[in-house]
Amino acid sequence: MFTETATRPDTTQIIPPRSGAAFTLNAGQTLTVIDPEGGQVADLLAIARADTREMLSSGRTLDYAETIYLSTAHKLYSNRSNVLLEIIEDTVGRHDFLLTPCSEATFRLCYDNEPPHRGCHGNLHAALAPWGIAEDAIPVAFNCFMNVPVDGATGRFKVLPPLSKAGDFIRFRAATDLIIALTACSAPASNGGSFKPIHYRVEG
Amino acid sequence: MFTETATRPDTTQIIPPRSGAAFTLNAGQTLTVIDPEGGQVADLLAIARADTREMLSSGRTLDYAETIYLSTAHKLYSNRSNVLLEIIEDTVGRHDFLLTPCSEATFRLCYDNEPPHRGCHGNLHAALAPWGIAEDAIPVAFNCFMNVPVDGATGRFKVLPPLSKAGDFIRFRAATDLIIALTACSAPASNGGSFKPIHYRVEG
Repeated sequence: MFTETATRPDTTQIIPPRSGAAFTLNAGQTLTVIDPEGGQVADLLAIARADTREMLSSGRTLDYAETIYLSTAHKLYSNRSNVLLEIIEDTVGRHDFLLTPCSEATFRLCYDNEPPHRGCHGNLHAALAPWGIAEDAIPVAFNCFMNVPVDGATGRFKVLPPLSKAGDFIRFRAATDLIIALTACSAPASNGGSFKPIHYRVEG
Repeated sequence: MFTETATRPDTTQIIPPRSGAAFTLNAGQTLTVIDPEGGQVADLLAIARADTREMLSSGRTLDYAETIYLSTAHKLYSNRSNVLLEIIEDTVGRHDFLLTPCSEATFRLCYDNEPPHRGCHGNLHAALAPWGIAEDAIPVAFNCFMNVPVDGATGRFKVLPPLSKAGDFIRFRAATDLIIALTACSAPASNGGSFKPIHYRVEG
């Protein structure tokens, strides 16, 4: 069993299944995103508090990292090519930075048999409401624990269950003052067919 | 030699090396992006004229296509999950939709020996000035002819010279009224080390 809440009851926060949260993270603080049960994706956005038009950019980050799979020591860049977060610890080593957060349209187009759900896109937008982030401005998120292997020969990819086991985590350090939005992902394929919580902790 | 300008002098437009252009494309019209000399990338953006907050989304498009390599019959989606463009013909079959347009920061971070250049990002922003598109809003472009093979095992990718030969082209049909911004790319690695023009034609 995962015991983080027992050992640090005052600092570990819980995001219930298929929901999201947003909070501030100051320069130098660390954010630990924990998969308490295993096999659960968490979509993460980072936005500069100094100017909320500056936010995480998958395209800049991948360009500078020269890999689609990011892990420890990789930096996550903004649309202005500034570092927002650095990955400082990672017990999983497989995350996605290609795909947009699941949304009502995702469920309409990809999950015919699902009842519509606002998805991570809707959850991120709702959580960011206090900062007035426009829904259209929400970019590709860094999808912690999301497992999207790509066939290099054909380009085709699959969305498989996460490789994360109970208690696995990824830890980031903020390079500047940020707003963080984080979800427990709502898409069946991304999460091995079941919806679980995500835990997180801000320290420093 | 490429003879498009000779045979269709009134419809083929020329984008000089390391520059960009923007123009309107109406629903049902086709846009042909031509590599007249071969080995040259063209970054393409599409923005909905009805509401310029709606624009091309790499993350939505890849999610729905289930491949990172798009070609004939693939649709390019907006951040609102609407189809903006469909690829209706493609003589090359290798384009990139992972990386952001090269920018002043790209040249600063990736090309130490280069003099700074505003890159495709700056050229797209300048070309879009009549429509008031904010620089921060420019997303990952669809990079016609850009050759970015990914190693599926490690995730690492390389930016190699385009596979396009002189006269190769990719043709799109607009699904709605659009603003198109298009460049002749400015980054050495993307273009085999030399900077060439891009031609385009709007028809229908």
